[in-house]
Amino acid sequence: MADKRFQPVSGMELPRFAGVPTFMRLPNVAKGDELYSLTEIGFVGIPWDGGTTNRPGARHGPRQVRDYSTMIRSTHPVSWVNPFELCNCSDLGDVSPNPSGLEDTLERVKTYYKQIKADNITPISVGGDHLTSLPVLRGLADKSAPLSMIHFDAHTDLFAGYFGGTKYTHGTPFRCAIEEGLLDPKRVVQIGIRGTMYDGDDIKWGRERGVTIITIDECMERGFKDVMAQARDIVGDTETYLSFDIDFIDPAFAPGTGTPEIGGPDTWTAQQYVRELAGVNVIAADLVEVSPPFDQSGNTSWVAASILFEILCIVAQARKGWEA
Amino acid sequence: MADKRFQPVSGMELPRFAGVPTFMRLPNVAKGDELYSLTEIGFVGIPWDGGTTNRPGARHGPRQVRDYSTMIRSTHPVSWVNPFELCNCSDLGDVSPNPSGLEDTLERVKTYYKQIKADNITPISVGGDHLTSLPVLRGLADKSAPLSMIHFDAHTDLFAGYFGGTKYTHGTPFRCAIEEGLLDPKRVVQIGIRGTMYDGDDIKWGRERGVTIITIDECMERGFKDVMAQARDIVGDTETYLSFDIDFIDPAFAPGTGTPEIGGPDTWTAQQYVRELAGVNVIAADLVEVSPPFDQSGNTSWVAASILFEILCIVAQARKGWEA
Amino acid sequence: MADKRFQPVSGMELPRFAGVPTFMRLPNVAKGDELYSLTEIGFVGIPWDGGTTNRPGARHGPRQVRDYSTMIRSTHPVSWVNPFELCNCSDLGDVSPNPSGLEDTLERVKTYYKQIKADNITPISVGGDHLTSLPVLRGLADKSAPLSMIHFDAHTDLFAGYFGGTKYTHGTPFRCAIEEGLLDPKRVVQIGIRGTMYDGDDIKWGRERGVTIITIDECMERGFKDVMAQARDIVGDTETYLSFDIDFIDPAFAPGTGTPEIGGPDTWTAQQYVRELAGVNVIAADLVEVSPPFDQSGNTSWVAASILFEILCIVAQARKGWEA
Amino acid sequence: MADKRFQPVSGMELPRFAGVPTFMRLPNVAKGDELYSLTEIGFVGIPWDGGTTNRPGARHGPRQVRDYSTMIRSTHPVSWVNPFELCNCSDLGDVSPNPSGLEDTLERVKTYYKQIKADNITPISVGGDHLTSLPVLRGLADKSAPLSMIHFDAHTDLFAGYFGGTKYTHGTPFRCAIEEGLLDPKRVVQIGIRGTMYDGDDIKWGRERGVTIITIDECMERGFKDVMAQARDIVGDTETYLSFDIDFIDPAFAPGTGTPEIGGPDTWTAQQYVRELAGVNVIAADLVEVSPPFDQSGNTSWVAASILFEILCIVAQARKGWEA
Amino acid sequence: MADKRFQPVSGMELPRFAGVPTFMRLPNVAKGDELYSLTEIGFVGIPWDGGTTNRPGARHGPRQVRDYSTMIRSTHPVSWVNPFELCNCSDLGDVSPNPSGLEDTLERVKTYYKQIKADNITPISVGGDHLTSLPVLRGLADKSAPLSMIHFDAHTDLFAGYFGGTKYTHGTPFRCAIEEGLLDPKRVVQIGIRGTMYDGDDIKWGRERGVTIITIDECMERGFKDVMAQARDIVGDTETYLSFDIDFIDPAFAPGTGTPEIGGPDTWTAQQYVRELAGVNVIAADLVEVSPPFDQSGNTSWVAASILFEILCIVAQARKGWEA
Amino acid sequence: MADKRFQPVSGMELPRFAGVPTFMRLPNVAKGDELYSLTEIGFVGIPWDGGTTNRPGARHGPRQVRDYSTMIRSTHPVSWVNPFELCNCSDLGDVSPNPSGLEDTLERVKTYYKQIKADNITPISVGGDHLTSLPVLRGLADKSAPLSMIHFDAHTDLFAGYFGGTKYTHGTPFRCAIEEGLLDPKRVVQIGIRGTMYDGDDIKWGRERGVTIITIDECMERGFKDVMAQARDIVGDTETYLSFDIDFIDPAFAPGTGTPEIGGPDTWTAQQYVRELAGVNVIAADLVEVSPPFDQSGNTSWVAASILFEILCIVAQARKGWEA
Repeated sequence: MADKRFQPVSGMELPRFAGVPTFMRLPNVAKGDELYSLTEIGFVGIPWDGGTTNRPGARHGPRQVRDYSTMIRSTHPVSWVNPFELCNCSDLGDVSPNPSGLEDTLERVKTYYKQIKADNITPISVGGDHLTSLPVLRGLADKSAPLSMIHFDAHTDLFAGYFGGTKYTHGTPFRCAIEEGLLDPKRVVQIGIRGTMYDGDDIKWGRERGVTIITIDECMERGFKDVMAQARDIVGDTETYLSFDIDFIDPAFAPGTGTPEIGGPDTWTAQQYVRELAGVNVIAADLVEVSPPFDQSGNTSWVAASILFEILCIVAQARKGWEA
Repeated sequence: MADKRFQPVSGMELPRFAGVPTFMRLPNVAKGDELYSLTEIGFVGIPWDGGTTNRPGARHGPRQVRDYSTMIRSTHPVSWVNPFELCNCSDLGDVSPNPSGLEDTLERVKTYYKQIKADNITPISVGGDHLTSLPVLRGLADKSAPLSMIHFDAHTDLFAGYFGGTKYTHGTPFRCAIEEGLLDPKRVVQIGIRGTMYDGDDIKWGRERGVTIITIDECMERGFKDVMAQARDIVGDTETYLSFDIDFIDPAFAPGTGTPEIGGPDTWTAQQYVRELAGVNVIAADLVEVSPPFDQSGNTSWVAASILFEILCIVAQARKGWEA
Repeated sequence: MADKRFQPVSGMELPRFAGVPTFMRLPNVAKGDELYSLTEIGFVGIPWDGGTTNRPGARHGPRQVRDYSTMIRSTHPVSWVNPFELCNCSDLGDVSPNPSGLEDTLERVKTYYKQIKADNITPISVGGDHLTSLPVLRGLADKSAPLSMIHFDAHTDLFAGYFGGTKYTHGTPFRCAIEEGLLDPKRVVQIGIRGTMYDGDDIKWGRERGVTIITIDECMERGFKDVMAQARDIVGDTETYLSFDIDFIDPAFAPGTGTPEIGGPDTWTAQQYVRELAGVNVIAADLVEVSPPFDQSGNTSWVAASILFEILCIVAQARKGWEA
Repeated sequence: MADKRFQPVSGMELPRFAGVPTFMRLPNVAKGDELYSLTEIGFVGIPWDGGTTNRPGARHGPRQVRDYSTMIRSTHPVSWVNPFELCNCSDLGDVSPNPSGLEDTLERVKTYYKQIKADNITPISVGGDHLTSLPVLRGLADKSAPLSMIHFDAHTDLFAGYFGGTKYTHGTPFRCAIEEGLLDPKRVVQIGIRGTMYDGDDIKWGRERGVTIITIDECMERGFKDVMAQARDIVGDTETYLSFDIDFIDPAFAPGTGTPEIGGPDTWTAQQYVRELAGVNVIAADLVEVSPPFDQSGNTSWVAASILFEILCIVAQARKGWEA
Repeated sequence: MADKRFQPVSGMELPRFAGVPTFMRLPNVAKGDELYSLTEIGFVGIPWDGGTTNRPGARHGPRQVRDYSTMIRSTHPVSWVNPFELCNCSDLGDVSPNPSGLEDTLERVKTYYKQIKADNITPISVGGDHLTSLPVLRGLADKSAPLSMIHFDAHTDLFAGYFGGTKYTHGTPFRCAIEEGLLDPKRVVQIGIRGTMYDGDDIKWGRERGVTIITIDECMERGFKDVMAQARDIVGDTETYLSFDIDFIDPAFAPGTGTPEIGGPDTWTAQQYVRELAGVNVIAADLVEVSPPFDQSGNTSWVAASILFEILCIVAQARKGWEA
Repeated sequence: MADKRFQPVSGMELPRFAGVPTFMRLPNVAKGDELYSLTEIGFVGIPWDGGTTNRPGARHGPRQVRDYSTMIRSTHPVSWVNPFELCNCSDLGDVSPNPSGLEDTLERVKTYYKQIKADNITPISVGGDHLTSLPVLRGLADKSAPLSMIHFDAHTDLFAGYFGGTKYTHGTPFRCAIEEGLLDPKRVVQIGIRGTMYDGDDIKWGRERGVTIITIDECMERGFKDVMAQARDIVGDTETYLSFDIDFIDPAFAPGTGTPEIGGPDTWTAQQYVRELAGVNVIAADLVEVSPPFDQSGNTSWVAASILFEILCIVAQARKGWEA
């Protein structure tokens, strides 16, 4: 069982709306703290939206997701897994970004994650826009051992560039990651792709390199079990990065995001997609593109926090080698 | 046919946004009025949220549900039942609560419902938080004749207590009611249960006593017809209390509630669940946990009013012994 | 391929939030402009809600839908059709309404559409409330050649009148259009009908005249493919008007409307309904009842813009005789 | 002292958020009720915005103002006057409007107010848009005895017509009333006028006929005491109509209105303006242009309810001949 | 100069929206921590609204005020005082409340503040509703040495009870405190009182006991300098409690509160009132009644955070004996 | 008189909510159009917020300000000036920005304004964040003829850099402009400065170079007439840039901005400040920092549009040499 000091504060003892909000009411630890060295899974905020080509605000994501995550309890309602019993989990705070410095921020995040990796902490990152996934991957992966990826999103994020040649935006991270050898495209699965297209070059480029792109229509026709069986098959037991863009979910459920696309799955279905990752060797995960300024009710952050708990259960079990 | 004086004002005559808002534009009658003594079904507001452990605001529920209920018309779109033709329905106003007096309020509500029962009025209550169901049950039931219950909710509300021993909160009413002998646990069905758990003790406690707890995953797998056939089977023709927590419905559809849980049914499905109560001997009903301060658009109250109409059709037919 | 001057501005060149917002970033052309005479499909706003019996605000619809429509890209994600390559499309601006003159506005709109028809432009209208469909039909149709109609809506809009005899409201346009001989009721299909009823006279009146009215329950049971096969069968290859009331879609997805009804389809399903119009001879279309004052998040306008793109693809292919 | 049955429900007994909301928690009485015949001051809602040339929604005004008015207590904080002790006050409900019938509605309202006058009830009307003042005046005044008027507003509402000749809009009522001989322009004072102008013809027309138009800049320079001394001087002891457009107040304080103009007075100053009506022979009053759909927080309705209480104190004292 | 470890994180280093939000980005310390024993001024949240008779939500106040307080910088713009240089300041977290236990919560808070006093920490409390001031005073004061108080509020909070005898609500704390001998009424000054009255008994009761009650009208007439000179004169150099109810400020500036009253001061004036406390021996302070559910924009919490900084500067200088 | 083709569409002819929204309903013209060469005053949007260190969203400013500006009429209420009669005014559209390219955007804007200057158009720019003022100045000014500036703002924007050396943010533009010789600091006046400070280095740096910095407290004490007399004195008849940050105005009136500071002027006072620019040789102006995502009601954009009209009147008169 995990260290008692890593147990989240219970809503039975301190009401959920009380206290300084950390991710899931976990201890907020910093490099150098005693608890840091004992941490197995660390939540990290990346409050930055400098790669956003459309509606901004994802820089406010980590703060609001922390707030709503204090409504999460400790035990999974289907599996009855308590991830806080499996692993020592903590809130590592935010990577310090530079709101007006794109390259600077990419460097800061990469450096941070190299350290996380060196410290043997499994990170669950909370964005921030989707460009943040690129420096995370730069910190965690390298050409000698490209990662697999299962990616839930309305968009492929495989574009070549925007606005006459800007390479780094939230629409390009995975093309960069593939080109940099951080991901093996043949072990990349993208699920939920939809929405009007510029010209489809992103999809064509991806498929040519072996990326498996499953559109929302395919998802609806085949169902989550079949889709995820294929995804599990593709990544096998390789080290797999999990990237969850909140716009995967329909904007009626998660309106607070930069580039919503209608016609997405509801939250129950989204939960099933994550639960079907059982057995996958997830070595890091992120949840990105929560934009609180476009989320007046806060529902998006509550959805995000709830999905983060699903992800945490997967990550914790993966960290323990899916023993249970 | 019902008394003409009980017919709701038609939107064809007075626009829906006009007039003093009563539940479904029914006459607002008080004990002592001529129409009171003729009332068969009475809507009652219980504007109180003193049992709320999380986000408050359900005290504002009855007012806003009244407002939105003026958009309801008179006839059911599937059954073509007009409940206002079947029974004399009225708005009995609100039970006067004490916002800062928990025990006092429990007593006031119980007393009120004892009178309602004595006056042979079938009550449809609009909360208020879920703790209000307890004094309603205390007013309507007793140990000699415990009621059955069909309960739609994301939560069991079967907890033992909160915050170091507080027995009365909106998470505990049905444990209390079972312990007090007001409900027969073997004839209690809870549908839609989901969300992260403290430790599952509520579920274990309930199941040990015979409560049928059907999780959302079971609902999704079996479908509403199968689930409700089981529910009807369990309660048989016994006197049955219907409790509908608005958080049964997914928060994309009904965000204005204190403790939302993602992954719930949509409103069409929720309507089917209520319609499947056809034939059940419902002798009282409530709809609770609408919290307008968390419902900027007002959609939750519109959902609540629409579900209340479904409930009214069931209650009116039950009051008439399901003759039609 | 379409004239280059009709290509919408790409979000890859000018960010989606930039520039004066026209429908889908098309050129804003006026009668007399060179581009007007080349226009094949014209978007027209009808910012008027004088027929609204309940919550107003649809007068603000065209402006906000224009705003959100700048997030639409050029190519359909399933068919890979680019409607802007098929036809010269433009934004013709708004018909000038008289907010305090009902008959005056009906006359203005009719006159405008007679001209549109004379100019051989296929109109896609954006309301405005549903009464605007009546003068559009008066401009486009006549007794000698009544149109067919496929109509997505929660309501039939077949009422005889309101408030003691007012004939023209947003609840009456299609009864008027049938009575005036503009629509052939035997070739009218209404899909998605639901919600509490006054007394069902609208439905009875319609069915007596041969209108095919498919309720939401029938939709849910049969599925969109079966329903739409019937609809296509009914209209055959006749000239067909397409009317899409945003309240067809569930209010969780499209809350910003005057008379929401719960229990409607989600947006993915709504998209499928429109896509199933493939092959139908749609000669004009409208999308109505978007009311921005009841749509704080803007989601409704985004849904509307996304559905408009689906409609545009159908209309453009129909204009080209479904060659592709 | 007033009849006990006319005392509003105290917030000390029933919490302010409880109960069916009537204006200031007064009894809701109808023509024919016993209390109707005893009523001296009657609140009347006019839920209609058919004259609105810009942003609609004032039809929802009476409902939301009723809701917020339940937070009003009984006694004035400066004068310690309790108007409910001075006069029998009640909520007479709403005049039934025709949302799609302009002339019809004007007739309905006029007829209603002729009856009110015949019944010797002093009306306080709650709009609705400002065009509603015209039929009210038609009901209360006639050429043989034109009324005086003190009018708080950002706009003169003295326009000749809109949209190519539409005479009746919310920008024209007082020009109509003067032309119809219902108001004596030499005894009309307009206070707070501001905002960009079409061409100033409304102001020129008014001044030529003797209307005293005091702009906001003059208000700011002279102060409320001086301005109101002049106003009192102009109307003397003649029968005076009081018209209060909520857009008189700055939109930071009262955003929920159809045509806001920045640079207006704050609420404290607005209260002083009304209080300076002491001694004026106010025989009827209205408060108009509250548009809840543009008032997400509800603050505008709270401001309106608070100003209505100030107006009520003036009206009650005037009804009693300013005896106290 | 203060200990470096107590310096708030600068927005120049970590953007204001980043990081776990504590009050003013101060260290979050708990009893037992090394920094706790060095703390001179401690921010304490009291997330509880069990005494609220009207609109709830103040339980969410501490969390949202923390969030907005991260936009506060370190130095006062008029005095150029940096309070973080004067004193060791920290965020002590929240007192754990019992949302459904009124007496229990009063006891918990009292006990907490007895300890704070014993630890020689000057507390700045963030509510929570105004009833929380009572147990704070019980913890800090006793009959042998009643405190003085300067109290900014729209209401006196001197009521005897509500709802038929409930003694403890947010309308009664200072009557209780005076009756319990915790405050010396002759050294209590209440500033900004306004709004409709029940019957004025609260004011009469207070004035009879020597409380100085200054209404908003008196404030407006005399100006803040004159009013505060009197206030300073009354409390002299005695130990003074400062209580700031956010509803002192006009609801256009601070809408998120339970019982707003129009006609209050703007924020600039409110700042001046606090600044005029220079030289007063403030030994503890609170800011209460921020209710985020009624504050969609978050402005109220930003106002609260900004006023808290003004209060902190006063408290820090008072703690240092107004040396500077 | 101005060319008829430049007259804005009147709300008397086309309702204010109708039509494609351009700034003040002016013609939308592009370089190369016939009307471009006749334009004397051009509104330009700069939809970019890449320099924002705190809350983003100013990229959405031009779009929403255009929307609200359609409520502006043609004539000034105090001076009766009609700027559209004085000068040919048009909407030049937006400068195309690069959301993820800071240096690229600075270059694009500078290039655009060099052309504007070459074309002898007086620009009124609508941001966008305040960093956009820097490239505008780079386009319009040079070292040989530094401009004067009157600057309304809560902040000096004279910082040296952020986040460890980032030179270009919205907190630094005027330090850059002074260092680059684009502004003569001795002829720069900053009005309304307030809010907590980092350490005051910005103010010290400015004052050392001769910038006149007038804090809000000085404004309140001296009044707008005295402050502006000084400002006019400082700039004399030199070419003057006018920069208006919407956060100059109190956030109760203009909440939608990135870094609000309480205690600012109301809108009436803000209008007076601009009107006191009469006689100043304003050769270009901007209004910046409107952030619609933080402006749910839209009020901020309405304030901005109203202030833009005040600015336009000043600019038009200045362009005509203050002949009138």
